[in-house]
Amino acid sequence: MNYAEESLKLHREMRGKLEITARVSTDSREALSLAYTPGVAAPCLAICEDPSLSYELTRRWNTVAVVTDGTAVLGLGDIGPEAGMPVMEGKCVLFKNFGGVDAIPLCVRSKDADEIVRTVSLLAGSFGGINLEDISTPRCFEIEQKLQEACDIPVFHDDQHGTAIVVCAALINALKLTGKKLEQIRVVQNGPGAAGTAIIRMLQSLGVRDIIAVDEHGILCPDRPAGLAGHKKALAEVTNPRRLTGGLRQAVECADVFIGTSVPNCLTADMVRSMNRDAIVFACANPDPEIDPAIAKTAGAAVICTGRSDYPNQVNNVLVFPGLFRGVLDARAKRVTEGMKIAAAYAIASLIPESELNSENILPMAFDSRVRDAVALAVANTAKSDGVARI
Amino acid sequence: MNYAEESLKLHREMRGKLEITARVSTDSREALSLAYTPGVAAPCLAICEDPSLSYELTRRWNTVAVVTDGTAVLGLGDIGPEAGMPVMEGKCVLFKNFGGVDAIPLCVRSKDADEIVRTVSLLAGSFGGINLEDISTPRCFEIEQKLQEACDIPVFHDDQHGTAIVVCAALINALKLTGKKLEQIRVVQNGPGAAGTAIIRMLQSLGVRDIIAVDEHGILCPDRPAGLAGHKKALAEVTNPRRLTGGLRQAVECADVFIGTSVPNCLTADMVRSMNRDAIVFACANPDPEIDPAIAKTAGAAVICTGRSDYPNQVNNVLVFPGLFRGVLDARAKRVTEGMKIAAAYAIASLIPESELNSENILPMAFDSRVRDAVALAVANTAKSDGVARI
Repeated sequence: MNYAEESLKLHREMRGKLEITARVSTDSREALSLAYTPGVAAPCLAICEDPSLSYELTRRWNTVAVVTDGTAVLGLGDIGPEAGMPVMEGKCVLFKNFGGVDAIPLCVRSKDADEIVRTVSLLAGSFGGINLEDISTPRCFEIEQKLQEACDIPVFHDDQHGTAIVVCAALINALKLTGKKLEQIRVVQNGPGAAGTAIIRMLQSLGVRDIIAVDEHGILCPDRPAGLAGHKKALAEVTNPRRLTGGLRQAVECADVFIGTSVPNCLTADMVRSMNRDAIVFACANPDPEIDPAIAKTAGAAVICTGRSDYPNQVNNVLVFPGLFRGVLDARAKRVTEGMKIAAAYAIASLIPESELNSENILPMAFDSRVRDAVALAVANTAKSDGVARI
Repeated sequence: MNYAEESLKLHREMRGKLEITARVSTDSREALSLAYTPGVAAPCLAICEDPSLSYELTRRWNTVAVVTDGTAVLGLGDIGPEAGMPVMEGKCVLFKNFGGVDAIPLCVRSKDADEIVRTVSLLAGSFGGINLEDISTPRCFEIEQKLQEACDIPVFHDDQHGTAIVVCAALINALKLTGKKLEQIRVVQNGPGAAGTAIIRMLQSLGVRDIIAVDEHGILCPDRPAGLAGHKKALAEVTNPRRLTGGLRQAVECADVFIGTSVPNCLTADMVRSMNRDAIVFACANPDPEIDPAIAKTAGAAVICTGRSDYPNQVNNVLVFPGLFRGVLDARAKRVTEGMKIAAAYAIASLIPESELNSENILPMAFDSRVRDAVALAVANTAKSDGVARI
């Protein structure tokens, strides 16, 4: 199938993948008087007295904004706010179909981090949560952090944490298969952008000690000649404990795990062969992975994940964000804690019982209907135990 | 019926009067690949090349933001952004049920005009139009004007212009009944707030020459002792051609038309008796009119309108905004011109044929299904002739 052509046709025919539906009738004077004036004054006054009632008397309890500035849309780069909207609408469709969440797509005509933060934070009373999407690195880190500080509702940059949570879920199960332990493995993360950086941070939360980050200039270390900009400087300080230097080839030698969020075909069969026995290869570059899975397998990889739906073990964010926001909304969480993300990863991993675990089945399928509830429950419970739940 | 109690019950049960519905399926890998990645890249790239395609390939063509800062909600005053949301949701329900328009409720946590303008204008790429709602006077004038200057989509403050359009429609028909002419009548406008000011401006566009504006301190004239703040100074300069002074009593003497957007029971029977023969009394204060219609009738008023649904001739904005935005969206108008508003008023008035016109039937009913199409067509056609239509 020619996806581009067929998708364009679908979009032309549908003229929008979302619509607003009225849940109340207004076909009589009486109905109108209850849904609108004069009756509506009563819920307004109730919320004025107790703003938390906006979660009871309006749709806020189930509503999330999906916000982009259009600077890093898919792999297309900075294509502008309006051009990002088909992705945002698609994301909102997934929020509804997979999580029962009402999601509103918004694009912001600014690239200034502070302005985006101010704009979105001023709208926070309209929503129960904010999903940031397709915002370029390193701006996405600053925007997410400042927006969370400015908001009393959870802010979640899915490109970072959604991916990190699925990768961690996959790694938890891959380690069960290979009999290795989080605390003992050596991990190479190639491509420390939005997703890669979040993966590294989350792996550290999980207990992984030996992580080497590699970008297009080589291994991240504080004094490398190619220099280090912004967030990579901070990464270099908390990774690479053995102070390795060089490029990807040097990094992967004797590594247990390769996690790529980088570019197609940068990992060679030789590199996989240089890894420790029972190597774990997560080649998540889109649309083409860092190494062809068949080549990786022949070179000795014990477990392989990609971002593609036509290979086993797809790293797909749809395993996370619908259930995570379902749980966040159900708990009326103020923010998404590290514990909530970890709980989501373990919840996803636990859906594959050890009896069914094998190298081609370490992650549930995107359409597995158990995922949403498992993630939602884990996230809501952890929100409560972490003290960020409002109910 | 106890509207307050019943409405609160409805709101508690519904937990939101709106929801987002997905218009596409994502229940197979193929469907997912067309609505989302990888297929969605094609419509994104198409919009990147030609941003106007956002009206073809996303829901923008049918989507309006309903924006408040919560400073003048109904007659409740400044109750805060979240507390305004039940009204915004209700308005969005009316947009859908009466106009087929997808409307998204947004509240802004700021009272600073420039900040509100900046916030909303940065989101303009997400919508086909912006409906401002329940923003206090005089800030609403500045916000609407600056926002329209900052936006390439139409901005419409319904509390001003929606009301003004219905009042003008009612006046057009009331004058037919009483045999008077726009150019010759004397009009008193009591309560020149958001709606009152817009009514005065629109009446002038229609050709009315003799308008006297009255506020709680008396007749507006440039040198009155009580002084004049902000927008009233400007009004005083273009109204009151006979330089009357005094209060409402002095203003209404020998007037043909009283238009109240003020407070209950401020217009006495004596005042109506002092008006010209075949007096027209529009007593639009909510929830109780400036004068009881029965008293006004006994005092000689030939035509009476109120804001209430339990009297004849209800001045109800629902006659305007659904059809107006339907027309604005259908024409992809860049803004709402004076001509479009006037066309909407005449379209509404023309729905009552002269044979059916009588003192209790000068406006169509809120549920008259012809209103939307008549207004939409008139507005879209005028957008084209005024050169602000994009299609």
